[in-house]
Amino acid sequence: MPFNLVIKIGGHLISKPDGIDLDLMKSYANTISRSFTGGRWCVVIGGGEEARRYISAARRLGLSEAFCDIIAVRITRIHAMMLAALIGEKACQIVPESLEQLVEYSASDKIVVTGGLQPAQSTTAVAALAAEAIGAEKLIIATDVEGVYTDDPKKNPNARLLREVTLSQLEEILRESSHAAGEYKLFDQLALKVLRRSRISVLVMDCRKPENLEKALAGENIGTLVIPE
Amino acid sequence: MPFNLVIKIGGHLISKPDGIDLDLMKSYANTISRSFTGGRWCVVIGGGEEARRYISAARRLGLSEAFCDIIAVRITRIHAMMLAALIGEKACQIVPESLEQLVEYSASDKIVVTGGLQPAQSTTAVAALAAEAIGAEKLIIATDVEGVYTDDPKKNPNARLLREVTLSQLEEILRESSHAAGEYKLFDQLALKVLRRSRISVLVMDCRKPENLEKALAGENIGTLVIPE
Amino acid sequence: MPFNLVIKIGGHLISKPDGIDLDLMKSYANTISRSFTGGRWCVVIGGGEEARRYISAARRLGLSEAFCDIIAVRITRIHAMMLAALIGEKACQIVPESLEQLVEYSASDKIVVTGGLQPAQSTTAVAALAAEAIGAEKLIIATDVEGVYTDDPKKNPNARLLREVTLSQLEEILRESSHAAGEYKLFDQLALKVLRRSRISVLVMDCRKPENLEKALAGENIGTLVIPE
Amino acid sequence: MPFNLVIKIGGHLISKPDGIDLDLMKSYANTISRSFTGGRWCVVIGGGEEARRYISAARRLGLSEAFCDIIAVRITRIHAMMLAALIGEKACQIVPESLEQLVEYSASDKIVVTGGLQPAQSTTAVAALAAEAIGAEKLIIATDVEGVYTDDPKKNPNARLLREVTLSQLEEILRESSHAAGEYKLFDQLALKVLRRSRISVLVMDCRKPENLEKALAGENIGTLVIPE
Amino acid sequence: MPFNLVIKIGGHLISKPDGIDLDLMKSYANTISRSFTGGRWCVVIGGGEEARRYISAARRLGLSEAFCDIIAVRITRIHAMMLAALIGEKACQIVPESLEQLVEYSASDKIVVTGGLQPAQSTTAVAALAAEAIGAEKLIIATDVEGVYTDDPKKNPNARLLREVTLSQLEEILRESSHAAGEYKLFDQLALKVLRRSRISVLVMDCRKPENLEKALAGENIGTLVIPE
Amino acid sequence: MPFNLVIKIGGHLISKPDGIDLDLMKSYANTISRSFTGGRWCVVIGGGEEARRYISAARRLGLSEAFCDIIAVRITRIHAMMLAALIGEKACQIVPESLEQLVEYSASDKIVVTGGLQPAQSTTAVAALAAEAIGAEKLIIATDVEGVYTDDPKKNPNARLLREVTLSQLEEILRESSHAAGEYKLFDQLALKVLRRSRISVLVMDCRKPENLEKALAGENIGTLVIPE
Repeated sequence: MPFNLVIKIGGHLISKPDGIDLDLMKSYANTISRSFTGGRWCVVIGGGEEARRYISAARRLGLSEAFCDIIAVRITRIHAMMLAALIGEKACQIVPESLEQLVEYSASDKIVVTGGLQPAQSTTAVAALAAEAIGAEKLIIATDVEGVYTDDPKKNPNARLLREVTLSQLEEILRESSHAAGEYKLFDQLALKVLRRSRISVLVMDCRKPENLEKALAGENIGTLVIPE
Repeated sequence: MPFNLVIKIGGHLISKPDGIDLDLMKSYANTISRSFTGGRWCVVIGGGEEARRYISAARRLGLSEAFCDIIAVRITRIHAMMLAALIGEKACQIVPESLEQLVEYSASDKIVVTGGLQPAQSTTAVAALAAEAIGAEKLIIATDVEGVYTDDPKKNPNARLLREVTLSQLEEILRESSHAAGEYKLFDQLALKVLRRSRISVLVMDCRKPENLEKALAGENIGTLVIPE
Repeated sequence: MPFNLVIKIGGHLISKPDGIDLDLMKSYANTISRSFTGGRWCVVIGGGEEARRYISAARRLGLSEAFCDIIAVRITRIHAMMLAALIGEKACQIVPESLEQLVEYSASDKIVVTGGLQPAQSTTAVAALAAEAIGAEKLIIATDVEGVYTDDPKKNPNARLLREVTLSQLEEILRESSHAAGEYKLFDQLALKVLRRSRISVLVMDCRKPENLEKALAGENIGTLVIPE
Repeated sequence: MPFNLVIKIGGHLISKPDGIDLDLMKSYANTISRSFTGGRWCVVIGGGEEARRYISAARRLGLSEAFCDIIAVRITRIHAMMLAALIGEKACQIVPESLEQLVEYSASDKIVVTGGLQPAQSTTAVAALAAEAIGAEKLIIATDVEGVYTDDPKKNPNARLLREVTLSQLEEILRESSHAAGEYKLFDQLALKVLRRSRISVLVMDCRKPENLEKALAGENIGTLVIPE
Repeated sequence: MPFNLVIKIGGHLISKPDGIDLDLMKSYANTISRSFTGGRWCVVIGGGEEARRYISAARRLGLSEAFCDIIAVRITRIHAMMLAALIGEKACQIVPESLEQLVEYSASDKIVVTGGLQPAQSTTAVAALAAEAIGAEKLIIATDVEGVYTDDPKKNPNARLLREVTLSQLEEILRESSHAAGEYKLFDQLALKVLRRSRISVLVMDCRKPENLEKALAGENIGTLVIPE
Repeated sequence: MPFNLVIKIGGHLISKPDGIDLDLMKSYANTISRSFTGGRWCVVIGGGEEARRYISAARRLGLSEAFCDIIAVRITRIHAMMLAALIGEKACQIVPESLEQLVEYSASDKIVVTGGLQPAQSTTAVAALAAEAIGAEKLIIATDVEGVYTDDPKKNPNARLLREVTLSQLEEILRESSHAAGEYKLFDQLALKVLRRSRISVLVMDCRKPENLEKALAGENIGTLVIPE
């Protein structure tokens, strides 16, 4: 049965210091195309290393933080165009530039692929907003960590990967654990607010291995499921 | 000498349960028009009671939170159109619908008047983003409280109005004081993040009396000044 | 067999002095969604009490008639967004802002919901223009009177409800009868011109009872049918 | 002192069966450019013979009246582009496609040149709407008759050219005189409604001689002045 | 099996000195509509005599070459609108104004009809760009010559019609033969560059007889096939 | 006296394998800002190494040539945004995406900065089109060679730098000399066609040293001047 879904692909997974990871990008596109059988799907993709390089140049040129972010958004849109082109017929070949456009395009029975939308807003926040706007029950965050840990595994050998956690528990972990700073970017305040008010579940998972996305889409037990209480 | 400025006018100041406060709206328009002598100015106006009424109807109809917010944004844009029309020749007569448009229109040597931009985003956050994007040194938040207090004056008779406070002190007060919940809406996380990273000063002031805006624009000592450390 | 249809819902039916009539709005949405089985359908919705309130405020602020109307158009578009959201999957979730967009969106196999388009133009005129533009054979005007009478029933106890009337007869009635002034708004000159030149039939009917719209869509004998000679 | 003005140039004056009247078009452009010293000016130009030719082809192809009108609007916009280009620096080089754009562009201190806007709407109606929207005190209708007559001069040798007439008198003349049908196109219902509600004066004048426009702009006594009571 | 195709219809075929050739236009529309069974199709139509007339007027008015071309593009878009309206349900009823829009609309499972896009660019170049952008294997150029000859048949009685020619051979013929100047317009440098780099086949054929287009679409041996080596 | 000018900055000058050349970019921005005293100016900037990297990735992903070019255009627009931001107040802060927008923005008394516009079109062709569209008398091509040589200096030690050359002579050199292939990219067919038909002069100059642009703008004898016969 068709369901509504948002997948957020961290920019660092596909845009690396030595260029675009073509194999991973192709693999994501194929998996998403194969798995899609209707419903409203939205894929949000980040800017990764390319965006960081432009932000750094713009900042050194003395341009404003807002400007730096707008440039980064432009890069994420290029990545979104590429991913949409790779997904092919099943994807909407135009990248929305606002949440209203995103809703509009998602009515076309095609997968909508988007990048960032606005300065000072993470792509995770975009993904949460998109999930709310298209009525998605679930948001998959494809990233480069296994999931949510009780503490930072690099510092605390006793840190455990959590299989399921409530939004409230997650917020407590983020506040208290020693890996908060690094991990926090996955869940900024805007994302958390939206996830809670619209009761959206999140699956945080490691997508460095392309087959993991397929597993997640097939409902296999992978990563951490964050449930809205 | 021309300077760049953002003024945020709380929607509840002009849209009240018994309708638009025509006198206050006219007064703001006149004050802003008279005070403007160049530079880039942006006025952000909220939706107030009208927005709340539509949000409430949409929510009871079972529509999504994102949809409710989008409707509220539409109401804020109507208020922005009205304010721009009242300001007249000195104001840009088209309301930007994205931060990029806002930057674009602000290059026209006219005051740009805008409302909200996106779901799950307060008009204070919009004002902070606008301040960053147009390079404003200062953001005036026109609201219905005197400024920032050490605690909630309704609960704590010893609460003092602060004349100046750093962003860090403000955040501590918001976390600890008993009036945090109510006051907090003035400074959500996104607004605070933007104010800090772009080092923008904020003046929080009571604008229920129309002459106060004139005082603030004339540099009189009024309300609370929040400085970026 | 699919056919092309325009339904005009008077703003006063859903936006009343005490707020949006949620039950009626939901009922219209359900009826329209259930009845639609293809073809090009367009629903035009008015601004009602909300629009009147903003027009009144803008006028007292000394703003131009054109501006007042533009604000009213904005309110009708909010109503159109809400109705489209309630209709759901079968409706285009973006509200056209010109007749050319309306034609464009109506090619999407979805019901297009729109509000007003331009100053000095009634939503009935919009409905007639829409009917012409999408090639509709029929226009249903859902309003708060039973149909077209031979005279004003409030003044003339002998006034009869007409079951069928030609456009020419209608124009004569509008010119001569004592209820002309009030009724006339249903058929302004632009609407009449378009109905005649493109030979569009109109059903005027009372939609205060939600089941009446269903009856009209099912072809039951209700209201007054205005035929193009 | 700058004032706000709308000039409507009948399409038949510049687009004739044997092509564009280059001399007349250049002359209008020069006169308008020379006379403009600020304020908000809008020039509305019609489609003339070119538009008629396309309408006729579209109608014979069986396309809808709405479609025919949309094509005619496209032709008027080409004429508007040409006139704007001829006026040069003082004119906005982009043709508005809605009344809201027209208002927006008219804030740029340039003359806005536009064509038609919508099906079933005369360019005179557009001119009246534009006059209302930009706050023009006066609308000049440049056409191919001397002004308003008491009756059709072709049929009634006693018909007199009127120098001044009120809107109400004009309407009575249009209703009663034998030249009503032909003349009526100068003042359709929408135009009359807008002129009355916003109290706009109209000067109807013969512009087949290019120097007449200059005279009219210089305030010479020419044509018929229609005053809003 | 659906395939991707671009058809370029020379403007001179449908817009002639004595007006639009209604029969030919209808015939093209019917043939295209009947033949289309899916895949991405794009039809590019030129401006013909109407465009030439406006270009000539604009040039005599002293307007720039860029401006003349932009006006011609506007005329081609009117032709595209007419053809799309005649094709009806199977055609996208909005004319793209950039290559990006063209790609976007071609994802809608409808035939996209377009005109020119930019100054200094032939509609053949647009057709080649469109073919590349939508991944068409083939481009049909409907024109008023039988195909590609070995030399200009009007000057050289021994000139032979070629049934098949490679792009390289074509370029050599264009460079050397005496009919180069006239014929060359069919294949400007931009078109040739795009055809070669994306390996697109071209069928050049005489479309003055409407049945020829049907033959070409049915794969009959007609005109000259230009193959990318 | 103000004059109209287009400057084309080769992408390879500012986007190099090791990143954006911040010093050169700042220097160009400062020089352009200082030199501009009115008139219509347009700066066209290329994509350089960044564009090449994305094109290469897209091509290896099997995406179409049109798509590769569209991505490159997106990169050039980011460079244009950066350059416009660096120029500051004197530059239009929005990057045109079509020639019509370019003309529109150039009426704003600000320098318009743009990148590419369309697939299969060099930024030199864009610069020539822009020069024609804004009525520029001159186009400056800032590149990494000294100017136009009689032959390829790397292969022929007798090659001489030309100080002045006609368009016809240039075309002959391009056809005959041994450096044709490499040099040719500076002047593709579209650029040459536009330069000739609108009689635009071109200055080809080496801009690796930032002071050269200043010299060129000051009218010093530098590079090669290509004159339209």
